[in-house]
Amino acid sequence: MNKNIFTFISCDSNYDEADVVLFGAPYDGTTSFRPGTRFGPDTIRKDSDGLETYSPYFDKDLADYNVMDAGDVQISLGNTQKVLDEIYHFTKNIVNDNKVPFMIGGEHLVTLPSFKAVYEKYNDIKVIHLDAHTDLRDELFDEKLSHATVIRRIWDLIGDGKIYQYGIRSGEKYEFDWAKDHTYLTPFTCRPLLEDLEKFGDTPIYLTIDLDVLDPSVFPGTGTPEPGGINFHEILDIIKGISSLNIVGLDVVELSPHYDASGVSTAVACKIIRELLIGILSNQ
Amino acid sequence: MNKNIFTFISCDSNYDEADVVLFGAPYDGTTSFRPGTRFGPDTIRKDSDGLETYSPYFDKDLADYNVMDAGDVQISLGNTQKVLDEIYHFTKNIVNDNKVPFMIGGEHLVTLPSFKAVYEKYNDIKVIHLDAHTDLRDELFDEKLSHATVIRRIWDLIGDGKIYQYGIRSGEKYEFDWAKDHTYLTPFTCRPLLEDLEKFGDTPIYLTIDLDVLDPSVFPGTGTPEPGGINFHEILDIIKGISSLNIVGLDVVELSPHYDASGVSTAVACKIIRELLIGILSNQ
Amino acid sequence: MNKNIFTFISCDSNYDEADVVLFGAPYDGTTSFRPGTRFGPDTIRKDSDGLETYSPYFDKDLADYNVMDAGDVQISLGNTQKVLDEIYHFTKNIVNDNKVPFMIGGEHLVTLPSFKAVYEKYNDIKVIHLDAHTDLRDELFDEKLSHATVIRRIWDLIGDGKIYQYGIRSGEKYEFDWAKDHTYLTPFTCRPLLEDLEKFGDTPIYLTIDLDVLDPSVFPGTGTPEPGGINFHEILDIIKGISSLNIVGLDVVELSPHYDASGVSTAVACKIIRELLIGILSNQ
Amino acid sequence: MNKNIFTFISCDSNYDEADVVLFGAPYDGTTSFRPGTRFGPDTIRKDSDGLETYSPYFDKDLADYNVMDAGDVQISLGNTQKVLDEIYHFTKNIVNDNKVPFMIGGEHLVTLPSFKAVYEKYNDIKVIHLDAHTDLRDELFDEKLSHATVIRRIWDLIGDGKIYQYGIRSGEKYEFDWAKDHTYLTPFTCRPLLEDLEKFGDTPIYLTIDLDVLDPSVFPGTGTPEPGGINFHEILDIIKGISSLNIVGLDVVELSPHYDASGVSTAVACKIIRELLIGILSNQ
Amino acid sequence: MNKNIFTFISCDSNYDEADVVLFGAPYDGTTSFRPGTRFGPDTIRKDSDGLETYSPYFDKDLADYNVMDAGDVQISLGNTQKVLDEIYHFTKNIVNDNKVPFMIGGEHLVTLPSFKAVYEKYNDIKVIHLDAHTDLRDELFDEKLSHATVIRRIWDLIGDGKIYQYGIRSGEKYEFDWAKDHTYLTPFTCRPLLEDLEKFGDTPIYLTIDLDVLDPSVFPGTGTPEPGGINFHEILDIIKGISSLNIVGLDVVELSPHYDASGVSTAVACKIIRELLIGILSNQ
Amino acid sequence: MNKNIFTFISCDSNYDEADVVLFGAPYDGTTSFRPGTRFGPDTIRKDSDGLETYSPYFDKDLADYNVMDAGDVQISLGNTQKVLDEIYHFTKNIVNDNKVPFMIGGEHLVTLPSFKAVYEKYNDIKVIHLDAHTDLRDELFDEKLSHATVIRRIWDLIGDGKIYQYGIRSGEKYEFDWAKDHTYLTPFTCRPLLEDLEKFGDTPIYLTIDLDVLDPSVFPGTGTPEPGGINFHEILDIIKGISSLNIVGLDVVELSPHYDASGVSTAVACKIIRELLIGILSNQ
Repeated sequence: MNKNIFTFISCDSNYDEADVVLFGAPYDGTTSFRPGTRFGPDTIRKDSDGLETYSPYFDKDLADYNVMDAGDVQISLGNTQKVLDEIYHFTKNIVNDNKVPFMIGGEHLVTLPSFKAVYEKYNDIKVIHLDAHTDLRDELFDEKLSHATVIRRIWDLIGDGKIYQYGIRSGEKYEFDWAKDHTYLTPFTCRPLLEDLEKFGDTPIYLTIDLDVLDPSVFPGTGTPEPGGINFHEILDIIKGISSLNIVGLDVVELSPHYDASGVSTAVACKIIRELLIGILSNQ
Repeated sequence: MNKNIFTFISCDSNYDEADVVLFGAPYDGTTSFRPGTRFGPDTIRKDSDGLETYSPYFDKDLADYNVMDAGDVQISLGNTQKVLDEIYHFTKNIVNDNKVPFMIGGEHLVTLPSFKAVYEKYNDIKVIHLDAHTDLRDELFDEKLSHATVIRRIWDLIGDGKIYQYGIRSGEKYEFDWAKDHTYLTPFTCRPLLEDLEKFGDTPIYLTIDLDVLDPSVFPGTGTPEPGGINFHEILDIIKGISSLNIVGLDVVELSPHYDASGVSTAVACKIIRELLIGILSNQ
Repeated sequence: MNKNIFTFISCDSNYDEADVVLFGAPYDGTTSFRPGTRFGPDTIRKDSDGLETYSPYFDKDLADYNVMDAGDVQISLGNTQKVLDEIYHFTKNIVNDNKVPFMIGGEHLVTLPSFKAVYEKYNDIKVIHLDAHTDLRDELFDEKLSHATVIRRIWDLIGDGKIYQYGIRSGEKYEFDWAKDHTYLTPFTCRPLLEDLEKFGDTPIYLTIDLDVLDPSVFPGTGTPEPGGINFHEILDIIKGISSLNIVGLDVVELSPHYDASGVSTAVACKIIRELLIGILSNQ
Repeated sequence: MNKNIFTFISCDSNYDEADVVLFGAPYDGTTSFRPGTRFGPDTIRKDSDGLETYSPYFDKDLADYNVMDAGDVQISLGNTQKVLDEIYHFTKNIVNDNKVPFMIGGEHLVTLPSFKAVYEKYNDIKVIHLDAHTDLRDELFDEKLSHATVIRRIWDLIGDGKIYQYGIRSGEKYEFDWAKDHTYLTPFTCRPLLEDLEKFGDTPIYLTIDLDVLDPSVFPGTGTPEPGGINFHEILDIIKGISSLNIVGLDVVELSPHYDASGVSTAVACKIIRELLIGILSNQ
Repeated sequence: MNKNIFTFISCDSNYDEADVVLFGAPYDGTTSFRPGTRFGPDTIRKDSDGLETYSPYFDKDLADYNVMDAGDVQISLGNTQKVLDEIYHFTKNIVNDNKVPFMIGGEHLVTLPSFKAVYEKYNDIKVIHLDAHTDLRDELFDEKLSHATVIRRIWDLIGDGKIYQYGIRSGEKYEFDWAKDHTYLTPFTCRPLLEDLEKFGDTPIYLTIDLDVLDPSVFPGTGTPEPGGINFHEILDIIKGISSLNIVGLDVVELSPHYDASGVSTAVACKIIRELLIGILSNQ
Repeated sequence: MNKNIFTFISCDSNYDEADVVLFGAPYDGTTSFRPGTRFGPDTIRKDSDGLETYSPYFDKDLADYNVMDAGDVQISLGNTQKVLDEIYHFTKNIVNDNKVPFMIGGEHLVTLPSFKAVYEKYNDIKVIHLDAHTDLRDELFDEKLSHATVIRRIWDLIGDGKIYQYGIRSGEKYEFDWAKDHTYLTPFTCRPLLEDLEKFGDTPIYLTIDLDVLDPSVFPGTGTPEPGGINFHEILDIIKGISSLNIVGLDVVELSPHYDASGVSTAVACKIIRELLIGILSNQ
């Protein structure tokens, strides 16, 4: 008899053969409104069982690719900097072995260490950021490390003109103003990303999707729902579009499953992860 | 004082005068992911009380037609074949008395015996199938009788070219492939049904609506939510369109009300049932 | 140390300096289907904390305007007429002091006394009414005062040709028929309001938004969800449009927050209130 | 085919043969804290299906007695006095036909009209009242008719020395003081009722059980949970004790099922109703 | 990097070194009232993480023993007999390897095949059965295999005088009557088990605990809550008592975690499993 | 019109006249299992409205005493040390003004800074600690500051023989062992505290109640429910007993209200706070 292995559906490759390594970062320690994204990765694994591996959108089957679900980063709750270090080292190992890290959050701050590990290998990297929120504050409650500052901290690393933000519809006025000089920010919609695709060419891309970019009607299970978001067809089109890019690291964050007892939000997250995996792997 | 009668709103005709007989089939025994459709019929009856009988879409009133709500088929849980026989005999009686059977599920497998009873009277029948899933597997867990095989079992009865599937967006690859030779499958959308209407002419139609054809934003209360579905306006248009057809039996299945504590999914199911009843009866 | 003040985000002006006075009317005593709108005002205050004060839609900040949240009208449950009197006097004070009253419901009946207080000052007032339901019954359960009769009671005060109804998709047949002679009723959609704007000119307007005008996918947290409603973008467009009108009193009613544990409906209500406040105040 | 009859388990006698008539009074219009007892009767009917008809406590079977479930009194929400009249007339009919009325609430105010109808036949009646609350206020929000005044209103009818209150643990100081001169009030526990049994002899008894007399650990599904109540074994002992009394009317009120999604509170209510029915009927 | 192993806390021994093998049987196909025990095993694994491995009751630590959590039996939903065969073979393997099988349900019917596998090795086995229900029906809905017949089916195998039932408080009259001749049935309480311990001596024991033996105040998360059960201290005393017996197989069934959103029922199940494991293993 | 003041029922004194200052510390940043105690203070304030101010247990009325609810400490999420400083300074002010600080958590770590502020004034202070957990770890995830280490950190300040722990039933073995030399730990029950009362004499006491000391049947709404706790009557007896002590600071922590949708846990917390306030103030 074997021990009980628990993975995202069909992501059961061994590490050596895996092209993409999926892992969870169940941290929500800086969440200011309603916590719970720590429950994201496990709930996604469990409910992925209700999903087929075949995508009629891509006409491809996830079971035909090599993905390993490596479980969760061990999180030291209560010490934000240490948690970020733990995620950084976990991601770094994957990157060093020439695999694509695909992280499931957790709150958005977990993107910072994962991005950093990827960026250290790909210095000319650009960031595609889908979100309802700018995440461009310099501080929240006088703290530099927060879900609300994460993109600003990434900018600290890579500077102007490297960050492309889509779907943004919430933030303080000074964030929107700051963005004009430092990032490419598209408010309300993600469609313009499809027109930007050509620009990216072969540039290494880090993709970070805060699921609250979706309208709460589609995705209610998140800490800070923001009406006015994009629908499921729009994000499917985006996924199809970016599949041709050179994505070297990615994450999907901010599912807080307990806020949606229907399981719909988790189903949406699962399908987005399946489509991203198939999209990326079928284009390699 | 009278005993407490409990029906879908205004469906209180006597059997003899009824043109349509509404009944529940509260069975969910083969549901593989999340059970609960057994609670569908009773919850629909109860919440129908929050509904008006007048439809501004048809400008007609349900109270002006003769419908009987006959309660639920008695279900013998734990023995799938016996349950199907019970539903078959219940439906057969209605059909024999020249009334239209309108079944409320329960899981989708309940369609098989209801369809069979209708088909025995109308041998040239065609099936219109709205669903997120193909339901064309030959077996699930080595079982021939399952919610995931129900349309395949109907095909066993009537063969090629009789089944029209719309809105399908989930299934295994081999199901989609098999459909190419045996059914008319429209993926993702139901709109093409409106163009197909003329083809059906006077052919007797069995209509089966798996409510998960709707997007989970509209209808979260189902066992296996599948993002990417149709919206409420689209299904309204479909109902208006098919009202002119010769519908001789129908069902609405897969509401699992406990997964949507807001009651919205039940409200959607109630309104679809009201519109179907008015649509069919005002065209007779 | 100060006592604990609890307001809608940033609406903490003193009464004297306030241009708009926000207040709650937590009454749901005539609700016939599912009660709970009494929890609306407090839940909106609490969850408004998750909202930014800056609106990217108007590019304005709520913090730059003078709004006072005056708490709730004290409600005497169990005596409908007395409750209406209490709301009337509360509103009357605000109107007398030349401030705009902005009431948060509660069920729709609370609009009657608030409107009456405003109407006594502005005799040439017109009413813009967004709702899923006609609310034009003359009686419900032989009662004149009910959530289902509120617009009919307002008509008792101001008569024909003064009430503009949008988004209506539910009611009895006789209500729709009656509306033809007495109000301007637009079924299903609110878009035509944007074309009617010019007609209103400088006429004083009372705006009443029953949040169930929204589709339940956007706003499930209400007592009687009615599928087939408008989406969030449509109501945003409406808000932008009516901001140029001469709104002298308004309300937002029928959030029943316990029916939406995700908090999405409350978030939608909060954002609508923020946009209305900014819209009205930036046009003064 | 027959119409769908919906009753408390096995309470399907015809009116003429019934010794006890069970009925619902789904009213919660004066509930000041959290509404929802209107959902009590229907939820009890539905979940009674999970109950056996046999009681191992009495070693008797409910199916061996004649009880009719007559459904619910039609309630005119929004007008308290009219609702009370409707309940009064419903009960009066049952009493006039020499049957025992057994009402399921609803909030506690519904006891007033039911009691009145019974009292008009049995002038020497005494009241046994199990509750967490005194319900002895003279007014709530200046209203005489309220869940919090109901026992005081009953005292208005029958005067001093007729009302026996048990389990009381909440109220204003003046209520406890008033009780000293007008009722027999036992705080915190119901056990002394067992010692009082002999006193009652053959006196006609109206029994009213506010289910919040139970500890919230046993019965969380109520509007105003009051920790410190009695447990299930204690109420079973009480039921066994009072079965020998001459109970001529009774009610069980204040289940608010939506506040206990586990269904445990409804199961407790169902079992208490079953035991009361068997207890009363096996002693006739 | 390793694959993600998912076990009951600290039950991560390899099969060869394990003395007890824990496994799940997530089947609820014959559940007649409210399904959901299929979610039991996984929820128990997940929430066991909130538990310490140290028991202050035994002053022992689970981490000091060798237990393997082997995951779940693969269940073929929709065919009861096949499911029972699958569980039988799974258990048989464990028994054949001289390890103690410890099954987590699922509904109570899963006890039948597990017991059968154990019984085939230990012909002189006796059964200790803790439950709210007799489970002694011969048929439910004409079916021999049901959660309500499981102990009767076990009696078919081992006959009179081998089954000891405790805590029983629900069933049909004929079940209680039948028990008088065929089993030892203690109603309402489990305490007499402590006096029976000596009788059992070295006899091999199969222990089956239907968690609804607990009062719903302690354990609300089950399909058919039965008020009047035992409390947590009583079951702890029972566990301590039976630890000295020769338990050769056991199970804990009928947690339906979705009916208790607080997680308390799962916490109770986890602690009972921990105490049982420590109790059995520290007495070997 | 006045701004909306929001307090625990009747705790509306001005600061100068207040003898006790109630305040919230809505922090849950080190919670390792299930977060949510941040929602404790506000939910307690809101639901206290369903409570009477009169206690039949003490026969005293809270409205007769001077308590101020000062709202919540402003919490800087994401930086544990800074949060503790904020709570420390808030409490320090109250202590300096010779008032008794009464803090409502939040997770248990918030006790550390509150205690420290009180201890600096009362150097001979002793601590009475009611809890399910020892909270004596030296580190959790290598962190010194954690809900699981809080009593150990208090010991760092005051040393051996000053801490009295009651009701403890969970922890690691080494914690129980360590307690033997450093604290007075009573496992499982709190009753022995009543015998210890005399020992305390006039010594200043800091009282900290982790509400999970209660059995989850009584109090399910907490992050880590631990079956086997004390009941409501036992904690009432404790409160009555300790009222005669010289309590100079206190807190009630670990209500996580979202885990108990019934509101019972919040009602329990409210009543405990009311009884503590009355108990302490009526003995001054």
